Amino acid sequence: MQTYDFGAGRTDPSSFPTEALAEAAQRAIREVGSDLVHYPGPHGHLGLREVMAARESTREGVEVSPDRLALMNGSMQGVTLAAEALMRRPGDIIITEEVTYSGTIRAYSGLGAQLVGIPVDEQGMQMDALAETLGDLQRRGTSPAFIYTLTTYQNPTGSVMPRSRRERLLEIARSHGVIIVEDNCYADVHFEGEQEPSLYAIDDGPDLVYIGSLSKTLGPGVRLGYVMAQAPMLERLLARRFDAGNSVLAASIVAELFRDGFWDHVATTNAILKAKRDAVFAGLGSHPEAFPSFSRPRGGMFVWVRLPDDVDRERLYDLAQARGVMHAMGSGFHINGEDVPYLRLAFGSIQPELIRDGIDLLADCVQEVRATAPAHAEPAIA
Amino acid sequence: MQTYDFGAGRTDPSSFPTEALAEAAQRAIREVGSDLVHYPGPHGHLGLREVMAARESTREGVEVSPDRLALMNGSMQGVTLAAEALMRRPGDIIITEEVTYSGTIRAYSGLGAQLVGIPVDEQGMQMDALAETLGDLQRRGTSPAFIYTLTTYQNPTGSVMPRSRRERLLEIARSHGVIIVEDNCYADVHFEGEQEPSLYAIDDGPDLVYIGSLSKTLGPGVRLGYVMAQAPMLERLLARRFDAGNSVLAASIVAELFRDGFWDHVATTNAILKAKRDAVFAGLGSHPEAFPSFSRPRGGMFVWVRLPDDVDRERLYDLAQARGVMHAMGSGFHINGEDVPYLRLAFGSIQPELIRDGIDLLADCVQEVRATAPAHAEPAIA
Repeated sequence: MQTYDFGAGRTDPSSFPTEALAEAAQRAIREVGSDLVHYPGPHGHLGLREVMAARESTREGVEVSPDRLALMNGSMQGVTLAAEALMRRPGDIIITEEVTYSGTIRAYSGLGAQLVGIPVDEQGMQMDALAETLGDLQRRGTSPAFIYTLTTYQNPTGSVMPRSRRERLLEIARSHGVIIVEDNCYADVHFEGEQEPSLYAIDDGPDLVYIGSLSKTLGPGVRLGYVMAQAPMLERLLARRFDAGNSVLAASIVAELFRDGFWDHVATTNAILKAKRDAVFAGLGSHPEAFPSFSRPRGGMFVWVRLPDDVDRERLYDLAQARGVMHAMGSGFHINGEDVPYLRLAFGSIQPELIRDGIDLLADCVQEVRATAPAHAEPAIA
Repeated sequence: MQTYDFGAGRTDPSSFPTEALAEAAQRAIREVGSDLVHYPGPHGHLGLREVMAARESTREGVEVSPDRLALMNGSMQGVTLAAEALMRRPGDIIITEEVTYSGTIRAYSGLGAQLVGIPVDEQGMQMDALAETLGDLQRRGTSPAFIYTLTTYQNPTGSVMPRSRRERLLEIARSHGVIIVEDNCYADVHFEGEQEPSLYAIDDGPDLVYIGSLSKTLGPGVRLGYVMAQAPMLERLLARRFDAGNSVLAASIVAELFRDGFWDHVATTNAILKAKRDAVFAGLGSHPEAFPSFSRPRGGMFVWVRLPDDVDRERLYDLAQARGVMHAMGSGFHINGEDVPYLRLAFGSIQPELIRDGIDLLADCVQEVRATAPAHAEPAIA
């Protein structure tokens, strides 16, 4: 059976630079050689930190020192480490977007945090709601461990926070003395229009933790990400890290690969991803009855699709799976697992020529689930 | 100034297989290629798990399935994960050897565990003392989260637990219903005599966590280790892991390197390490006044050196550092940081021709510290 993989957030396989990576590996290993008998140190391989500092500096137009970066075993180690280091006790509150990355929900819930969600619109986390929540917490004599936010090409909604909202976020957090953890792992998966500045480029404060990744530009299999923060915040995070550091083998190879070619690679993969995204838009747009609305992300790897209220999301998921169409249910991204009437389509991995057929099939599934809804079914809550 | 590096536990740099690794990297990357766009999954790259299962199976003479292994970002991720997954609350007790690996002490203390130490002799953790401690805890209505033990070529003492003591350990732990975490990271750094079986080869129970490493046979810079346990223990550990898995880039390269050549590599490096260890023995033996006794490990990378009682260990450390002789103070390996009259010499990294001079210099430092001891100094506690 033909499968249509809109399930997982993966980079495009056809443009994966296998040969360049193989050659970079040879050069890197010959250069690093017996230095691999050393422990990586808390910050990790300097070469990759330099390349990633240059990446940040080029995108944001501000100077970034490699000394402020610490390499992580994928950005998820950074996401996890933030909570491990900054939570004061089990049950501590972490504020996130109400729908956010399922891996983050799993990590923070697993660490015993209480997630408090802020509604999201196409401009990201809503600031009035955030201010109200922080005010409520303050009146109850408490405060969150931090605010975790996917500011750019948010997963799953694709929202981007405009500069003015970012400024307000920084101001609200500062006035409440709350730390912000900015997960910017999709930043360079940018297709069109202006790019918004990261929070540190606006106000490089001591209460900011920034998280970057190579999973969305190269591939999750390399497990290379980083955290960036001013002293003493960076040291505070690293003091809670006990795995003796990041693979110098992996880091030195990717540093060699991207020493000069990072932006060329990103331009290549973004063009491919943009074409796939456009095909998803076209497919969804031709089935307004099945997909009444959907997000229009200017970057990232996901489209967040609104379903008609009367579609049973679990039945849809099962039926689509059975027909070979993989997707992610909206409930997996809701901090409380609420059965929100959405699904997420990831377009990084699927072959472009399969997109239209896959979406047509998915639309058939939606209509079939509606037509065969049990008579006693209650309408879903909008 | 010439430096003599007996400080850190590193593999021999001269025998690091740089060229073979570079060639393995090319082959591995061409084979894995665009599979690097996938997440590694909770267990990590199958190829390296197969090679490591074969390693365990060959050493221990029992069948080991790759399905029971999960790759870690160095064995220290496994050491840390054991405590994160198995501690029931902050302040939980973890039982260890009274002197043990400093990285483990840092991790477990950092996680809020209360370390309870069992005295060690040349046969490792003393079982009467362990039984007594567990009995005491039981009478106080509590039990440890687990027993962490370096059974073979213990760091820092070099002790090896004989089979009979291992059997008693398993029996004591079973009778108290206590989990054992066996850190066997030095197992293959073996120089002479019989090898003792690992605990799982004696009794493969559901309450055993086994930790292996490539840091002591290849190098800590690759950050590749693994945990091994039966279901559901393995799943219990992995449920507490949130970093989205181990680098497939690093793992696939090392799998390719060691698919056939692991034991040849180990034979080469062990011969070099044995010669260095023998040079350390010879050097120490020629200064009985400075080094009244020292361990005689049959494997591993460390010699544990008894100092005369009247040597101020901090002054010795500072003086030796100033003269270029790096070593590790015994107190760094004591679970309570007690100023035990020992130092640890690591012999993996130092060039063989420097060993004798370095130890002669260190002996001079010992005698100089004794000769210039402040008149009011109290004798150190033995």
